[in-house]
Amino acid sequence: MLSKNVETFIACDCDYEQAKTVLFGAPFDSTTSFRPGTRFGSSAMRGESFGIETYSPYQDKDMEDIAVMDSGDIELCIGDTEKVLAQIEERTRIILQDGKRPMMIGGEHLVTLGAFRAVAEKYPDVHIIHFDAHADLRDDYLGVKLSHACVLHRCWDIIGDGRIHQFGIRSGERAEFQFARQHTDIHPFSVEDVASTVKTLVGKPVYLTLDLDVLDPSIFPGTGTPEAGGISFDELRRAVTCVCSCLNIVGCDVNELSPHYDMSGVSTAVACKIVREILLAME
Amino acid sequence: MLSKNVETFIACDCDYEQAKTVLFGAPFDSTTSFRPGTRFGSSAMRGESFGIETYSPYQDKDMEDIAVMDSGDIELCIGDTEKVLAQIEERTRIILQDGKRPMMIGGEHLVTLGAFRAVAEKYPDVHIIHFDAHADLRDDYLGVKLSHACVLHRCWDIIGDGRIHQFGIRSGERAEFQFARQHTDIHPFSVEDVASTVKTLVGKPVYLTLDLDVLDPSIFPGTGTPEAGGISFDELRRAVTCVCSCLNIVGCDVNELSPHYDMSGVSTAVACKIVREILLAME
Amino acid sequence: MLSKNVETFIACDCDYEQAKTVLFGAPFDSTTSFRPGTRFGSSAMRGESFGIETYSPYQDKDMEDIAVMDSGDIELCIGDTEKVLAQIEERTRIILQDGKRPMMIGGEHLVTLGAFRAVAEKYPDVHIIHFDAHADLRDDYLGVKLSHACVLHRCWDIIGDGRIHQFGIRSGERAEFQFARQHTDIHPFSVEDVASTVKTLVGKPVYLTLDLDVLDPSIFPGTGTPEAGGISFDELRRAVTCVCSCLNIVGCDVNELSPHYDMSGVSTAVACKIVREILLAME
Amino acid sequence: MLSKNVETFIACDCDYEQAKTVLFGAPFDSTTSFRPGTRFGSSAMRGESFGIETYSPYQDKDMEDIAVMDSGDIELCIGDTEKVLAQIEERTRIILQDGKRPMMIGGEHLVTLGAFRAVAEKYPDVHIIHFDAHADLRDDYLGVKLSHACVLHRCWDIIGDGRIHQFGIRSGERAEFQFARQHTDIHPFSVEDVASTVKTLVGKPVYLTLDLDVLDPSIFPGTGTPEAGGISFDELRRAVTCVCSCLNIVGCDVNELSPHYDMSGVSTAVACKIVREILLAME
Amino acid sequence: MLSKNVETFIACDCDYEQAKTVLFGAPFDSTTSFRPGTRFGSSAMRGESFGIETYSPYQDKDMEDIAVMDSGDIELCIGDTEKVLAQIEERTRIILQDGKRPMMIGGEHLVTLGAFRAVAEKYPDVHIIHFDAHADLRDDYLGVKLSHACVLHRCWDIIGDGRIHQFGIRSGERAEFQFARQHTDIHPFSVEDVASTVKTLVGKPVYLTLDLDVLDPSIFPGTGTPEAGGISFDELRRAVTCVCSCLNIVGCDVNELSPHYDMSGVSTAVACKIVREILLAME
Amino acid sequence: MLSKNVETFIACDCDYEQAKTVLFGAPFDSTTSFRPGTRFGSSAMRGESFGIETYSPYQDKDMEDIAVMDSGDIELCIGDTEKVLAQIEERTRIILQDGKRPMMIGGEHLVTLGAFRAVAEKYPDVHIIHFDAHADLRDDYLGVKLSHACVLHRCWDIIGDGRIHQFGIRSGERAEFQFARQHTDIHPFSVEDVASTVKTLVGKPVYLTLDLDVLDPSIFPGTGTPEAGGISFDELRRAVTCVCSCLNIVGCDVNELSPHYDMSGVSTAVACKIVREILLAME
Repeated sequence: MLSKNVETFIACDCDYEQAKTVLFGAPFDSTTSFRPGTRFGSSAMRGESFGIETYSPYQDKDMEDIAVMDSGDIELCIGDTEKVLAQIEERTRIILQDGKRPMMIGGEHLVTLGAFRAVAEKYPDVHIIHFDAHADLRDDYLGVKLSHACVLHRCWDIIGDGRIHQFGIRSGERAEFQFARQHTDIHPFSVEDVASTVKTLVGKPVYLTLDLDVLDPSIFPGTGTPEAGGISFDELRRAVTCVCSCLNIVGCDVNELSPHYDMSGVSTAVACKIVREILLAME
Repeated sequence: MLSKNVETFIACDCDYEQAKTVLFGAPFDSTTSFRPGTRFGSSAMRGESFGIETYSPYQDKDMEDIAVMDSGDIELCIGDTEKVLAQIEERTRIILQDGKRPMMIGGEHLVTLGAFRAVAEKYPDVHIIHFDAHADLRDDYLGVKLSHACVLHRCWDIIGDGRIHQFGIRSGERAEFQFARQHTDIHPFSVEDVASTVKTLVGKPVYLTLDLDVLDPSIFPGTGTPEAGGISFDELRRAVTCVCSCLNIVGCDVNELSPHYDMSGVSTAVACKIVREILLAME
Repeated sequence: MLSKNVETFIACDCDYEQAKTVLFGAPFDSTTSFRPGTRFGSSAMRGESFGIETYSPYQDKDMEDIAVMDSGDIELCIGDTEKVLAQIEERTRIILQDGKRPMMIGGEHLVTLGAFRAVAEKYPDVHIIHFDAHADLRDDYLGVKLSHACVLHRCWDIIGDGRIHQFGIRSGERAEFQFARQHTDIHPFSVEDVASTVKTLVGKPVYLTLDLDVLDPSIFPGTGTPEAGGISFDELRRAVTCVCSCLNIVGCDVNELSPHYDMSGVSTAVACKIVREILLAME
Repeated sequence: MLSKNVETFIACDCDYEQAKTVLFGAPFDSTTSFRPGTRFGSSAMRGESFGIETYSPYQDKDMEDIAVMDSGDIELCIGDTEKVLAQIEERTRIILQDGKRPMMIGGEHLVTLGAFRAVAEKYPDVHIIHFDAHADLRDDYLGVKLSHACVLHRCWDIIGDGRIHQFGIRSGERAEFQFARQHTDIHPFSVEDVASTVKTLVGKPVYLTLDLDVLDPSIFPGTGTPEAGGISFDELRRAVTCVCSCLNIVGCDVNELSPHYDMSGVSTAVACKIVREILLAME
Repeated sequence: MLSKNVETFIACDCDYEQAKTVLFGAPFDSTTSFRPGTRFGSSAMRGESFGIETYSPYQDKDMEDIAVMDSGDIELCIGDTEKVLAQIEERTRIILQDGKRPMMIGGEHLVTLGAFRAVAEKYPDVHIIHFDAHADLRDDYLGVKLSHACVLHRCWDIIGDGRIHQFGIRSGERAEFQFARQHTDIHPFSVEDVASTVKTLVGKPVYLTLDLDVLDPSIFPGTGTPEAGGISFDELRRAVTCVCSCLNIVGCDVNELSPHYDMSGVSTAVACKIVREILLAME
Repeated sequence: MLSKNVETFIACDCDYEQAKTVLFGAPFDSTTSFRPGTRFGSSAMRGESFGIETYSPYQDKDMEDIAVMDSGDIELCIGDTEKVLAQIEERTRIILQDGKRPMMIGGEHLVTLGAFRAVAEKYPDVHIIHFDAHADLRDDYLGVKLSHACVLHRCWDIIGDGRIHQFGIRSGERAEFQFARQHTDIHPFSVEDVASTVKTLVGKPVYLTLDLDVLDPSIFPGTGTPEAGGISFDELRRAVTCVCSCLNIVGCDVNELSPHYDMSGVSTAVACKIVREILLAME
């Protein structure tokens, strides 16, 4: 008897009961102010993930040996931002309630707010580690508060000063950098301070949010607002491996892949490889 | 003395006071359910319009001889659909109040609602002529009422039965076709009935809304949801020339060009040529 | 409890037991002599199928009302053509044995041979209706017998003279056209003779093989060897609807979509729409 | 012993002495006012020509049976328009002096002037049959006389009134259409008058210049200034077959393919197929 | 009252009278010997510049605080190289005469000659700082003296030995490198010597010409002749910031962006960011 | 008298008798498991090679001074892997028998097996230097032994332990890395050990096989399975220059360029530049 076509991120095919980590996609990009297309990020990654191997020679670990399940994309109410965030929050809450770790694939960066609301509810003392080219700290963008450009400001509304640790930031308004110096733990331009930050967070619940445009656009052109001067793949790989293998990651997301802007497929392959390294490092 | 760079749709450079028709762009695509990108339609058309001539051998008229002004794109509050529609309505109202005819370039089809609200306010007895591949008559789309897929239903909410004349429709839910048979004047698949419909509308105020995907995707691939089996360029050109030269067009829009999906530039060139023919026919 | 991500062609999500027609993909293109890429055809169609509606206004039928199941792509032994054909034959045989109709999505045209071997085994008196730009009647191609360019010759090896009905053929070697005049029922250039051929086949078992490049490349550019001068979408739609609603289709395939060659997505959307019309017409 | 890599247009590999027709490429696009890229036309066609067959089922003739030789692209002095035209004229003159027929592949349309100068020198009573979307009859373009937009005016400077027969023209300045009505034999929009024009030219020396943008951009998007509303492939195929099989073609050119604008390869394949039909019809 | 659509490079919208620096585009690429397309560089940069911020965290300066005006593209006489250069020279001269600094956006590198003629007229003792992958020192290219491949040789014709300082050069004929060793101050492969060169030029008038292909094609693929082994974005950013903040820049240009060759938009974004850093550093 | 169009890799136009190195293309990609397209590698490189210079400033050598001949692509029996390998072996054998050095341009990596069979026959004590992102050491891939993923295992079948020196490997199954540790001389992730390996091989016959995906995909996106974390162009350039100038290279190949996946042309230009450096270093 034949079964219906199942398509998961490579090797994320264990059953829900056994899964320690549960993936889902949040294909939303409606507040994107410049070039949209991240809504195709998660589905592109599923298809392209079969171009990488399940084994990581960096960590000498294999996806075949860990328990991850891909629960697919949420069917979002495109056009109503609040409803979309509520849908994301609900999916995250279910996974957390079942004692599993949520891993969300965006979509634009605003989707982080939905997942983080559920995470912060369960872990009120959670910290955020944030890799990004952009500060995302505006209070509003052209009058809109629920915008990708404001997402870390919205998270700060929830957890307050000193709990957001930002790395690789190299773009923003002057006011955002001023806000960061007062309210967040910002490390502009590079990720060289990650290891020392990690030491201070050992044992605490940590949410990891990775905007892939922290990478240099030479290796990750498939994104809406490419910012030259970013970090290399190996720098990011080492940083996320350090974060995920040393800390208690209670939830994470990887976002801002816009696959149509890089028809070579490289950006999608890079995103898949980083997700593999994160998944392997967390276990 | 040098002046700042002015970029208008070709030959739409008369001053506002002299202008009879005023163009503007509405770069919005946030409710697009499938593939976004129409936000780039109006700016792409400005650049590409210099690849066509100002003279139409079809009508033996020249853009140099008519008074059109391109007032640029509205800077929209991406992420808040109601605000976006209010901004569009406001721009349209200004143009109408100054006794000029508004011509909007989308953007996704939902932008029509903003412009039409202002038009229906001034002309309560207005009719709509609607060219499209899709019926756009859903009452809601995944629970969202302000969606491109519902835009003609929202217009019907304003003007009611028998005043929406639809041509070329070849896609929709079963329920939309049922709704159309009861509430609109639908002519599926083709535009062959345009001339006879035009005869019944002579002298009445008419709003023209043209979703360019009414064209066959062979000639217009640059759109989010291409539907094979559409009409040819010459059929559309003749239909809009008939409508615009015979009727009292009090406002119009041309939408759903998503230029990045057609890197040959043909779709954008086609959109420009249709806009030229419409502008020439209306004067 | 969340379930693993299931991705099927739109509305082809009934269970195997209930299904009357069972879809599967055959992502193979290794004998392609010019430009490869059809291996991505079936997976591209699954994703893009959500851009079309389940309802067909042409036939006034809805996919929601029929029983089709998408069993996914076969994982093929790329590099060994005979094994690949055996795998396809096996999947087809299972579906036939369970009293269901197989519908295969290619891949290159050679995949037809695998499916047809199983079909001809069960229905020795089967006829083939073949839509294509190319005759595909070579005996060998550069010495290779199992080549996409020879696939109808290989089918003829099985069923012999007068049982292959070819439409739309407009390219081939001189020798292929000579072979066709002696051994097949060829109707070059157009599909206008389909209706009269259909009349002669009523009640007989028929296998439909559709090489999408029978379409004009203006509407279907996404294929390896585009041949100008093809038929229109409406001509193909009417022809397949006629064939599938009037005849006893015991199996069918749709092949030669190479999605990467048409980045507008139009070719994939066209393929999806034709598959929808075929599925609706068969029931 | 191995020989150096020879790459010709398909089956155009006979030796110079035996050749009746000699192909060459003129990879020039420096006066292109809108989007350049036609310089890649001839080399793209050589590579892509192996995707078509040598046999034409339309004419039941085979390239294997005729004597054509591809002498490659001229290495042009890019940046100096007059030198470029002189180089083209010289290559054409050599071919004519050796009693062979020159067939040039552009490049932009201005290259016609170089070839035509040599042709008109040998055949002072030559007529021109011109297929194009654009009239190309300006006297100058932004002050430049040697421009693609002026090329037929420059030819008219040589042969004067009544000897240029234009078909398919659908774009130009008002002044160009006025000039045409006085000085050329213009048939705008279509090619339906070709057969009757051919009758009047039987026995006379004729130069055929084919700007491929006479085709509708649905089938030929790969060109710098696409103009919707063009003729179909079959209309062009029939027209050039009629011209080339009935008349004394003393030289011809095919130009304005800009392959990079159509990454599907369809435009290049269309150009190859038309060249094949021309070559077969001339013999 | 609505005003006509004004499109400038981001934040370059001050009035001419107040402007200290005046931008203009020179959309010319007719002598490009390999792949054309730089004519679209300046207009692409205007549109894409709104994807970057006006604030530079590198320099802690903001475009909102400086006085730059974008006077648009010159409408060039495509097809007549000398006229084109004269037009560019004239625009530059006006800006210089009004006591402002000209900043030109190409176009191919030959446009530098037009601007430099006007600059050298006003500042006979001017030096050139030249960043490029290619030496551009040929005396002629296939017999043509006014070619992009000769542009620095033409500048040397004006100012002679020792006044051209070249960085990053990694491609050229053997003869060009020999010429450079005798006549220019060449620093091949890297920009590490920039700081020491800058020290020797303090107080002198300097013209900066930046061929963006000095960047590695990994970060700047959108150019006609990509040369691997180039410098990184941060190396270039630091080099131009050093040059522009320490020296008396009397004019500058940034050229050779060919946006169509990089559909991800990264190259255009990189060009915009470098222009922002140059503009901020100069003030 | 005109000659037929000859197209070679730049400056590889000496006659066979004089040639010391003979190039040929092997346009095969039928066992490619993920994304095909390398069959276009060799022909794309011929065209694009004219964008680089014949002179290398790195080595101060010029292609004009060495004797290389490009014998074109083999016309391969697509669809029959064993026949294809036999054809490649035969071409290689001819070149070796004539006392010349074969240089093959792929195609996918499996083509190496064909060439290496002939090389190992003549030089039974040959060593292999292998640059690659992937180990290519599987014994079979989905049951197929003649697969690109197995090619180094097939070479090891011929020459056994300790004679394959692998550099840059960063992807593979766990089992491949285990195999490598036992049977090959593997240097994962980088090329920093090349110089010390070279010292141990001086005077011995060496076959160089270069899978270009050893490069980081930022500089070489045009390949089927991009693997982030690769080496830079300068690292590869130095490594191959070291290998080719210090060792007795009896044959070599460069493969896995898939030009269509990088429409900027950068990948092809990179491949051309590496081939130039290899050819110059070997002489």
